[in-house]
Amino acid sequence: MLDQLQIDLESPVPVYRQIADAVRRGLEQGELPPGTRLPPTRDLARRLGINRNTVVSAYDALAQEGLVQSHTGRGTFLVSPGSDYETPGNPAPGDGTPWFSGFSRAVERAGVGRLLSMYRVVTSKEGISFAGSYPASDLMPVEPLRKAISGSMKEAGEELLGYGPTAGHEPLRRWIAGSMRKQGSVLDADQVLVTNGAQQALELVFRVMIDTGDPVVIEEPTYTGALSALHSLGARVVGVPVDAEGMRPDLLAVALERHRPRLIYLQPTFQNPTTSVMSEARRREILAVAERHRCVVVEDDWGGELCFDGKPLPPSLHALDGGRRVIYLSTFSKKLLPGLRIGFVVAPPEVMEPLISLKQIRDCGTSPLLQAGLHRFLQSGGLNEHLRHALPVYRERRDATMAAMERYFPPGVRWTRPSGGLFTWVTVPPAINTTDLFESARREGVLFSRGELFHSGGGGSDTLRLTFAGNPTHEIESGIKTLGSLMTAIMGKDERDGEAAARAVPIL
Amino acid sequence: MLDQLQIDLESPVPVYRQIADAVRRGLEQGELPPGTRLPPTRDLARRLGINRNTVVSAYDALAQEGLVQSHTGRGTFLVSPGSDYETPGNPAPGDGTPWFSGFSRAVERAGVGRLLSMYRVVTSKEGISFAGSYPASDLMPVEPLRKAISGSMKEAGEELLGYGPTAGHEPLRRWIAGSMRKQGSVLDADQVLVTNGAQQALELVFRVMIDTGDPVVIEEPTYTGALSALHSLGARVVGVPVDAEGMRPDLLAVALERHRPRLIYLQPTFQNPTTSVMSEARRREILAVAERHRCVVVEDDWGGELCFDGKPLPPSLHALDGGRRVIYLSTFSKKLLPGLRIGFVVAPPEVMEPLISLKQIRDCGTSPLLQAGLHRFLQSGGLNEHLRHALPVYRERRDATMAAMERYFPPGVRWTRPSGGLFTWVTVPPAINTTDLFESARREGVLFSRGELFHSGGGGSDTLRLTFAGNPTHEIESGIKTLGSLMTAIMGKDERDGEAAARAVPIL
Repeated sequence: MLDQLQIDLESPVPVYRQIADAVRRGLEQGELPPGTRLPPTRDLARRLGINRNTVVSAYDALAQEGLVQSHTGRGTFLVSPGSDYETPGNPAPGDGTPWFSGFSRAVERAGVGRLLSMYRVVTSKEGISFAGSYPASDLMPVEPLRKAISGSMKEAGEELLGYGPTAGHEPLRRWIAGSMRKQGSVLDADQVLVTNGAQQALELVFRVMIDTGDPVVIEEPTYTGALSALHSLGARVVGVPVDAEGMRPDLLAVALERHRPRLIYLQPTFQNPTTSVMSEARRREILAVAERHRCVVVEDDWGGELCFDGKPLPPSLHALDGGRRVIYLSTFSKKLLPGLRIGFVVAPPEVMEPLISLKQIRDCGTSPLLQAGLHRFLQSGGLNEHLRHALPVYRERRDATMAAMERYFPPGVRWTRPSGGLFTWVTVPPAINTTDLFESARREGVLFSRGELFHSGGGGSDTLRLTFAGNPTHEIESGIKTLGSLMTAIMGKDERDGEAAARAVPIL
Repeated sequence: MLDQLQIDLESPVPVYRQIADAVRRGLEQGELPPGTRLPPTRDLARRLGINRNTVVSAYDALAQEGLVQSHTGRGTFLVSPGSDYETPGNPAPGDGTPWFSGFSRAVERAGVGRLLSMYRVVTSKEGISFAGSYPASDLMPVEPLRKAISGSMKEAGEELLGYGPTAGHEPLRRWIAGSMRKQGSVLDADQVLVTNGAQQALELVFRVMIDTGDPVVIEEPTYTGALSALHSLGARVVGVPVDAEGMRPDLLAVALERHRPRLIYLQPTFQNPTTSVMSEARRREILAVAERHRCVVVEDDWGGELCFDGKPLPPSLHALDGGRRVIYLSTFSKKLLPGLRIGFVVAPPEVMEPLISLKQIRDCGTSPLLQAGLHRFLQSGGLNEHLRHALPVYRERRDATMAAMERYFPPGVRWTRPSGGLFTWVTVPPAINTTDLFESARREGVLFSRGELFHSGGGGSDTLRLTFAGNPTHEIESGIKTLGSLMTAIMGKDERDGEAAARAVPIL
């Protein structure tokens, strides 16, 4: 397993942590059983072409986590990972270990850094970017929003610059509740908690509902931010495969039977990354299965309003369930503007107090000023205006993307044609590893999101996500063309390299 | 112990949770040993004058946490709390327990709700409030800030309304680094992480550095928000007493020896709530003790710039230590405006990657728009301008508070005379319980912060915190007068009631 270890020197993840992660993964997945002796640091360093101290740091990190033990003169051995191993005490004075030699499990667990790694690509502003899931910056209603914020400050600046209620600015909570009632949900404003974007909404819900080791069912693949949050909390992530309509209810039933999780996390509309939309029948089936097993459903509806094909969407799970067992969350980042960092959770009344209590501990509430400015903008009809303007552009960009892929991608590549949202999901033939493709494409000035980032435990290297919403059509054309050439080249090269790869020597 | 159980029907903490918390506390503190039989629900309900179902819910919550076991026909018994008990699986279908019948330990642990409970008083805007630690809203530079935000949006709206770098808006990070260098710190902008206020800064640092069960040393008493965050993380909180100069180094050494914690949390300047300022000699002593035990020091410098007596402050711990083992945090909430929700952490380079990674998972970064607006305001000298204007007013209000307390408080009450910050710390004779005083004062339209909220495990009921910075002098006079009359009345009444109290009957 370590013989295939790939080190990425340009990755934001430090090399020592890449090594430690690979070993931990091997141990967790049974490829490196407890008792295995790790290669001597000197050998592994030579084989990887890196400094020996880096390997030492990796082994130290593993020791810190209780995953390896060193025996002088014999080497370093993997040990059985306890589900909750003893935290080692502070090192004794003067024992020479570095001062900051390991962090909490919340940040050290495998997969925790994934969201940051994706986000750094997203915000890198290099070349043509299909990475991230950005709304188009050229369509942002900057001026109306500036006026709304400025107006709010003129009207109630002193109040808005003080501490506001933890749960959110009352008028905004009422607006959100009203807008959801129009979509068929039953709720009142007390059930709304305003958060710093959907990411905070998600993380708070997970943190309130689960403890370390608790199983949580997700769609496989799913949103990277949900995965990183779950990994950080030490949840046991149980992936249930999706088909064209989203999560499969038959497999969900099996997973619930076997793992008895408390939570199911779903994106029924424009699922990120597969773009699927659950039919109403499927939604009802999923809810029925969840109900039978007394599971709470977390519905992430980040993109429900980004529907550009005119076909009406099915009701949300929250509306279908009457809001009894569904915790709903959404954001203004995708349908409007990420920079406001405003999202929200809607939860049954029993869940509100713990959610608000945790929000309080986390940051004492979202900026009242931004909330008031957003509310003023919404009240004036700014969101509808923006969508009327933006959605036809998104459709045009989707079409341009479809046309370019048709034209430039080699045979065997498949993709979805989404009826809304911001991106398409692409599957490539096994010959192409999209993590390798990512590196070559980056050198050519084209970015996308690697499919691996959306999978809970390996897999997905034959997939990638292309966000079209943020790029003008000429960039789409040119970026897809570049990707197409790279794919074509790899597919040719692969045939020649098949034999050489088989000769790689295991290091363990 | 349960015989003294007080239920607060008006508290934001549900009554069932108040009961469960009291039992849990008793168990943790050894007052209710494992094996103790809890009173029958019917009896306890009658004794407390509440609905029996509420007591049932309390016992259920304890069972959910693994702290009690019920045996049909025999009753409900306390069991030994495992340091990390098994999480019960999801209840079986149809077993009749409520759908949301318990949350994660992160929100269910005792003390977690304390910050919210305080904050609700702070934001209630009732009568005359000495609660919270607010800067004065009548002094807020609303208009300059409005112009700064508006100007930033005109200049770079599209960029600021997109996703920004997780670690913060670069120019703001550079401004913060520059400002700290002027105060003698060694750092560069890469070591700054912008957060949603100091509360997020604090919680992120704790989360990155410690795991459940890890000991953390604090000043006793200390900031409620730090306590709630530590309780939520399941830290073992070790309080070290303070004197007039802050934490005592001799007792710190004993605590470090005994508990081997990884972190010490300190507010060396205008300590919240005791208002003490550590001398430079004391700071050096504390750092030396920490260094001997290889402890990381978390320095919370929320109010270092709120110095109104003209006497220069000692250098920060961060400056004295050269930033090697000190993680420093501060906020613009107190020195400027809470509503921006902007604070920051400065940490050694090794700590930045895990901190940023966690910030990413938590909320994908603080609003770039607010950061840019704040930076523009700071660049134009707005903060100095504000402080020039506000600090003399704070001094005047401190003096008015001192004069009023001198005049109206009964003999035996003592208080601090802070040379900066926003509040004073008051100690009352044992006859006065400040939690009871809080209730009477609230009825008279006067709010303050109860001393109990600042203590990690009981205690502090003879103390209270009075924030003077936010009130005009005539309100200070009138509010203190009310408090003084209530104190005088209680001290008279207490002598008459002494005997009756001794006759209370234990219920266990």
